[in-house]
Amino acid sequence: MTQAHPVVAAALQQALVDLTDLSLQGKQAHWNIEGPGFRSLHLHLDEIIDEVRLAADDVAERMAAIEVAPDGRAATVAATSLVDPMEPGFLPTDKTARQYEERLLGVAERIKATLDPVDEHDHLSNDLLIGIATGLEKQAWMLRAATKDLN
Amino acid sequence: MTQAHPVVAAALQQALVDLTDLSLQGKQAHWNIEGPGFRSLHLHLDEIIDEVRLAADDVAERMAAIEVAPDGRAATVAATSLVDPMEPGFLPTDKTARQYEERLLGVAERIKATLDPVDEHDHLSNDLLIGIATGLEKQAWMLRAATKDLN
Amino acid sequence: MTQAHPVVAAALQQALVDLTDLSLQGKQAHWNIEGPGFRSLHLHLDEIIDEVRLAADDVAERMAAIEVAPDGRAATVAATSLVDPMEPGFLPTDKTARQYEERLLGVAERIKATLDPVDEHDHLSNDLLIGIATGLEKQAWMLRAATKDLN
Amino acid sequence: MTQAHPVVAAALQQALVDLTDLSLQGKQAHWNIEGPGFRSLHLHLDEIIDEVRLAADDVAERMAAIEVAPDGRAATVAATSLVDPMEPGFLPTDKTARQYEERLLGVAERIKATLDPVDEHDHLSNDLLIGIATGLEKQAWMLRAATKDLN
Amino acid sequence: MTQAHPVVAAALQQALVDLTDLSLQGKQAHWNIEGPGFRSLHLHLDEIIDEVRLAADDVAERMAAIEVAPDGRAATVAATSLVDPMEPGFLPTDKTARQYEERLLGVAERIKATLDPVDEHDHLSNDLLIGIATGLEKQAWMLRAATKDLN
Amino acid sequence: MTQAHPVVAAALQQALVDLTDLSLQGKQAHWNIEGPGFRSLHLHLDEIIDEVRLAADDVAERMAAIEVAPDGRAATVAATSLVDPMEPGFLPTDKTARQYEERLLGVAERIKATLDPVDEHDHLSNDLLIGIATGLEKQAWMLRAATKDLN
Amino acid sequence: MTQAHPVVAAALQQALVDLTDLSLQGKQAHWNIEGPGFRSLHLHLDEIIDEVRLAADDVAERMAAIEVAPDGRAATVAATSLVDPMEPGFLPTDKTARQYEERLLGVAERIKATLDPVDEHDHLSNDLLIGIATGLEKQAWMLRAATKDLN
Amino acid sequence: MTQAHPVVAAALQQALVDLTDLSLQGKQAHWNIEGPGFRSLHLHLDEIIDEVRLAADDVAERMAAIEVAPDGRAATVAATSLVDPMEPGFLPTDKTARQYEERLLGVAERIKATLDPVDEHDHLSNDLLIGIATGLEKQAWMLRAATKDLN
Amino acid sequence: MTQAHPVVAAALQQALVDLTDLSLQGKQAHWNIEGPGFRSLHLHLDEIIDEVRLAADDVAERMAAIEVAPDGRAATVAATSLVDPMEPGFLPTDKTARQYEERLLGVAERIKATLDPVDEHDHLSNDLLIGIATGLEKQAWMLRAATKDLN
Amino acid sequence: MTQAHPVVAAALQQALVDLTDLSLQGKQAHWNIEGPGFRSLHLHLDEIIDEVRLAADDVAERMAAIEVAPDGRAATVAATSLVDPMEPGFLPTDKTARQYEERLLGVAERIKATLDPVDEHDHLSNDLLIGIATGLEKQAWMLRAATKDLN
Amino acid sequence: MTQAHPVVAAALQQALVDLTDLSLQGKQAHWNIEGPGFRSLHLHLDEIIDEVRLAADDVAERMAAIEVAPDGRAATVAATSLVDPMEPGFLPTDKTARQYEERLLGVAERIKATLDPVDEHDHLSNDLLIGIATGLEKQAWMLRAATKDLN
Amino acid sequence: MTQAHPVVAAALQQALVDLTDLSLQGKQAHWNIEGPGFRSLHLHLDEIIDEVRLAADDVAERMAAIEVAPDGRAATVAATSLVDPMEPGFLPTDKTARQYEERLLGVAERIKATLDPVDEHDHLSNDLLIGIATGLEKQAWMLRAATKDLN
Repeated sequence: MTQAHPVVAAALQQALVDLTDLSLQGKQAHWNIEGPGFRSLHLHLDEIIDEVRLAADDVAERMAAIEVAPDGRAATVAATSLVDPMEPGFLPTDKTARQYEERLLGVAERIKATLDPVDEHDHLSNDLLIGIATGLEKQAWMLRAATKDLN
Repeated sequence: MTQAHPVVAAALQQALVDLTDLSLQGKQAHWNIEGPGFRSLHLHLDEIIDEVRLAADDVAERMAAIEVAPDGRAATVAATSLVDPMEPGFLPTDKTARQYEERLLGVAERIKATLDPVDEHDHLSNDLLIGIATGLEKQAWMLRAATKDLN
Repeated sequence: MTQAHPVVAAALQQALVDLTDLSLQGKQAHWNIEGPGFRSLHLHLDEIIDEVRLAADDVAERMAAIEVAPDGRAATVAATSLVDPMEPGFLPTDKTARQYEERLLGVAERIKATLDPVDEHDHLSNDLLIGIATGLEKQAWMLRAATKDLN
Repeated sequence: MTQAHPVVAAALQQALVDLTDLSLQGKQAHWNIEGPGFRSLHLHLDEIIDEVRLAADDVAERMAAIEVAPDGRAATVAATSLVDPMEPGFLPTDKTARQYEERLLGVAERIKATLDPVDEHDHLSNDLLIGIATGLEKQAWMLRAATKDLN
Repeated sequence: MTQAHPVVAAALQQALVDLTDLSLQGKQAHWNIEGPGFRSLHLHLDEIIDEVRLAADDVAERMAAIEVAPDGRAATVAATSLVDPMEPGFLPTDKTARQYEERLLGVAERIKATLDPVDEHDHLSNDLLIGIATGLEKQAWMLRAATKDLN
Repeated sequence: MTQAHPVVAAALQQALVDLTDLSLQGKQAHWNIEGPGFRSLHLHLDEIIDEVRLAADDVAERMAAIEVAPDGRAATVAATSLVDPMEPGFLPTDKTARQYEERLLGVAERIKATLDPVDEHDHLSNDLLIGIATGLEKQAWMLRAATKDLN
Repeated sequence: MTQAHPVVAAALQQALVDLTDLSLQGKQAHWNIEGPGFRSLHLHLDEIIDEVRLAADDVAERMAAIEVAPDGRAATVAATSLVDPMEPGFLPTDKTARQYEERLLGVAERIKATLDPVDEHDHLSNDLLIGIATGLEKQAWMLRAATKDLN
Repeated sequence: MTQAHPVVAAALQQALVDLTDLSLQGKQAHWNIEGPGFRSLHLHLDEIIDEVRLAADDVAERMAAIEVAPDGRAATVAATSLVDPMEPGFLPTDKTARQYEERLLGVAERIKATLDPVDEHDHLSNDLLIGIATGLEKQAWMLRAATKDLN
Repeated sequence: MTQAHPVVAAALQQALVDLTDLSLQGKQAHWNIEGPGFRSLHLHLDEIIDEVRLAADDVAERMAAIEVAPDGRAATVAATSLVDPMEPGFLPTDKTARQYEERLLGVAERIKATLDPVDEHDHLSNDLLIGIATGLEKQAWMLRAATKDLN
Repeated sequence: MTQAHPVVAAALQQALVDLTDLSLQGKQAHWNIEGPGFRSLHLHLDEIIDEVRLAADDVAERMAAIEVAPDGRAATVAATSLVDPMEPGFLPTDKTARQYEERLLGVAERIKATLDPVDEHDHLSNDLLIGIATGLEKQAWMLRAATKDLN
Repeated sequence: MTQAHPVVAAALQQALVDLTDLSLQGKQAHWNIEGPGFRSLHLHLDEIIDEVRLAADDVAERMAAIEVAPDGRAATVAATSLVDPMEPGFLPTDKTARQYEERLLGVAERIKATLDPVDEHDHLSNDLLIGIATGLEKQAWMLRAATKDLN
Repeated sequence: MTQAHPVVAAALQQALVDLTDLSLQGKQAHWNIEGPGFRSLHLHLDEIIDEVRLAADDVAERMAAIEVAPDGRAATVAATSLVDPMEPGFLPTDKTARQYEERLLGVAERIKATLDPVDEHDHLSNDLLIGIATGLEKQAWMLRAATKDLN
């Protein structure tokens, strides 16, 4: 059976925690935005959250498949996530989009930094992480495109 | 327009935080269970999580509708949730079911304790909370039935 | 138009009453089971009930088609059904499965005993009853398999 | 955990028995009607039956959720239901509609009479029963409208 | 490969022609009815026609499977069908229902008369014809129920 | 860009107002009918209303496409519609069907009277109105067929 | 059978008229908006209209169920609705959203003012109106969030 | 109400009879083809038949809408259709495709010849016939393309 | 409970093995065909395989229902199946169709030979086998029709 | 068979080329827009593209039906399309909407200019082109409404 | 065109044979299990089998795409598969789950051992095999979790 | 944020242009084929086109995600695509299949040649291109299999 190398286990656990946090910050954004373009972004955030939750699920179940217990409890997430929290309270749409785009790209960057080390020990986990990072970067572009400074 | 009484605002914010935590603990359970009945509970937990996430969404959007900013960020959840975390690591199915049933009933109890005070100020929020608590108690029964001591 | 022979009419009316009772006992079981494997059996029973209700409907409408008035009222069912009632109150899953399997097989046996006499007068009703009995025996196997003594 | 008050338990058990009987009488009507408007009522009755069966299910599962064992077996239904049986044999459509409308309203009236006592002990069961009674009264109107004496 | 006995071939060809004619008379009825219950019967006839067309298709493809060329062309149908044509022009609903019920039962009777001879040579065609006749008799009942003389 | 000729603008605005009124009278009928055939007409009216609302939408959006502001507000409808209101209060099914059939045909006639003048200036609006009138006449036939005097 | 108290009848008739008008004003807005955010609001208004039409339907059918004839004809709506008409002609998106949000909240407020008096006589109608008002306030928030002045 | 001009009535009745015959010849072809490309044409013919049957239905219901009784009975079809019968017995695919293509084009040509005379009296029937002929010509192309002589 | 007669058990086990082999040979054919009509047959084979797999499943579960353990393991299939293997390697479409048609008919013939002996002991298994053989013969016709020598 | 007049052939070929180009420019816009309202327009453009591609398909298949070979290859499109290319590179949302609206209207105008000449020779192609032009004008309005100068 | 290196061809052929055998052993298990958790595992096995069959299909079609003839016939599978057969006869659920988990992991291990050699010659086949192995390991975890020894 | 290396940008832009051209040539083929197997290939080409369009979309959106403006305008495609145009005019099926298979393989080859250089700078784009090339090769096989010279 697959033996989980510590490098792989650590990369997956960090991805799980970051993706979980990303889904919570996404919901926070979904509920608190206001201003022009509200509805469009309100709906778009929910699509991103669905994709992020699915990614977290895939990561956690890959961990279980290689016999590492995933930890996605609130306290663990709050303590170890590298995602900055969104600002509290109602938030204008453009600020929301920019803040969330940064967080999406941040998680994508951290995942990409683990690809080569992970690939040395586990081609299967590597392939899974590539797919997730590609999705995060695409969603980030869509938020970026919506808030481009055109002056 | 509806004026949000502090009693209503507080009850909804606490429900939001508890329900969000419940969804995270549910996922933790979904990924870490093992033992007889694994698959059945693995799938059942995902149905409960869908229902709990929907409830959190309805609560947060009711808050926004009465002009209270909902706060569902990881740090806020970790700091103010009244839900006990699940045990870490892989967990047998029966223990998982019993622990999660307790958490479901705990949230239902706390919501029921706010029904009369909330109803004094806001019939609409009250009606929403009643529906959520009914659902939690029904799901708790299904977990309880599965782990009843029959001796 | 088809003339309903008394043998055919009696066989169909008995099947109707037994199948109706089987659906009520199935719901009783669906609500009152508890113990390991609860959810799996809880859901399975609902599938069986759907199939049994459909069978009762087909039998009753065949009766109407050959101009015999079907009688599926509660009092008639209680008085003429040959299905033993389930035990009252909450019931462990294994006991539930065994009791309900017996009832399924009992109805199937009684239907099979009428096949040859019915076929003498009405090939069409015979064909309908064969399909119903096959379905009941298959469902009985699935319940039996789940409670096989493996020691 | 919710403690079931005897008033609540009794109201729910009676509702369960009446709704179950209502579904059996509805099927009896569905199979035995004849005369003008046959098909329309034949199909309408099946929609009512689906709704009534769902209501019975919700009541029984609420009982289980508050730890009261529901009893919906044929003998119990025949012995304790307060619903009058439909006339036996084939029945004209208008008579069928009028008889079944009375039975629907009868069950709705009995449920409404329990609302205030139940609400004293259990807001959640009360909310469930309100929804069921509203549905029964709407279906009763549709049957009544079809048989109004227009002279 | 299956050798088609002339008895089987003849029974299937006659069933094909009668079923095809039944579908044309059904459409004629569907377009020309008028009077109370119009819409209900208008829709019901289309359901019967769908079922009858499917039956014709099954018969013709069974013929091809046993290497007998089916003939369902207009002239053949007009010349050999044993179904009486509907009255021309707009037709009251009750008359329509009664005329079409007779035609359904007529085809069912003729098919049933061929069951035993066919079964001697081909169990498979026999089984197909049984299913078709059962369906025709059920639809005939539904039309008959709607026009029952209730005085 | 398409220049809207006054003849076209006026024809579309009148169609919009008449179709909107037709949908309101249709709902009035849907809620207030009673008597034999109630359910069939109750459901049929809802299908007609869906079709009529869609037609109103198509007309209004064609107006916007040719830069004419559509006016479908309650006061405008009440003041300029050429559709007679239904009788108030509960209404027998046959009277309802006849009254609503007249209103459907009235709107169809007024639309057909504008086809040639509109076609001189705008083939596209003409094609849209033809489709709408065809639909209204088909629905009128179905109501008419149901109330034909058969004596 | 339920006896309709005049207080209940009046509250439901006013709600019916206001909701019907709200759906017409919503369509007017849907067709005449222009400016930034056009498409998002154009689609959102159609979702609100669907919800409002369903609410009007539920209110009218509750009235029929308690034997009060609903009146939703154009003239009645124009004469008794308390909803202010939208401005005529093409209208900028922000103005449209603000005007329609006010109308949604106005109807919600008027419904909420009738809740306690209605509940004294009819728990079932009260429950229906609570659900409708909750929906209107949620939709109003979504329009408000989209037009928040962020300076 | 629309008055049906004899020219319109005759054109529609002939179209009805031809389309009905086309559907019967199509089924004959569907059952009797054999040779290379069998399955593809077998399935394609069923799609054409669905479209042709729908066209016949639209024509017949347009006739009823303008108060002309449609006649689609087998004897009428056999006596007045202008469609040549397919050859009897099993038939090679290419011959089948060519024979059926000719019949499709023949019906399209006859319908097109009636367009201008019909349009003089009834724009609505004209529009319906245009749509039908367009569909027939498209299906004919697909059959022709499949049997093109490529030498 | 049903007692499985050895004749019935043997007939079902042989049918299971033959049907399983038929599905493997079908996949072999699906992957290795090439030449004119490739895609059509490639897709058709997958439909046949779905039907054959379903038949194998039904047979195996009937065996379990009468308490005979089905054996569908690769070695058992290879050793006891009476189906000839397809030729290895890429294979022209016509050859593929002819070879697979023979195999379908071979299995159907062997099943038909067991019908009467099986029916003596078990009407239910007999009915199941009739349905399977009918399906195989229909699929065989469709392959045969596609490769008929037309010279 | 339909003989394609050169006027008809030319009008259809030009429409095919313009519609194909419109779909490519639409994808260019879909990928390169940025700025406020990004997501809404991004999605709207994809709906327009689907509609435009379907129109191109209908035109090309009408050409084939009247035996004119359609030419939609990249070089032909680039050489003969009358649609101006979009500006290269990322493009602000408002500019994108205005540029694409002009292109939609340009194609609609060119198609409308061919309607009368085409109708002289081919009513069927004329009807097809009317439907396409109506769709293009409706989509153009939606883009125009979103960029209206409101000062 | 892609040239298939013998290393790639051999790896794919072995994977095809192992996956085919895995699907047969899975069906054997699906039909013969009995004991606690029967239904859950019975259904789970069917999901795994669907996934395994799809994988076999993808492998075989990749082989064809690089011009290697896949061989999945029963005799080839029986002779060259490296999957151990399941035990014959009815089998307890836990034993079934453990035996099948081992077989899933065995196939995954053998596929993983070929990844690097395959990747040297064909990135595309490598990517396909990675996806398949990831799926097998995930399914193995779910079976393992269900049978974990918790003492 | 991801920095797009020129090698990656160039590979993606070329893939975009080639895939867009492939979709246009595919439509050309879809409309102009004729001869044996027409319908099968006509439908197959549309499936390939859907897959190719989706691939173009994924490539263009990956470019935007890494901040490179994609260029898919008609002139750019005509000028820089490396795909040879299909022959003009109606084209026999076998020639169509062979010509289009070559173009599919050509694009796949050019994409595969960029995999290693792209992978040096961007694992994510590399993974996307692998998936696209695998799909093109599979579709090419299906066309190739259909036109294999079997002599």
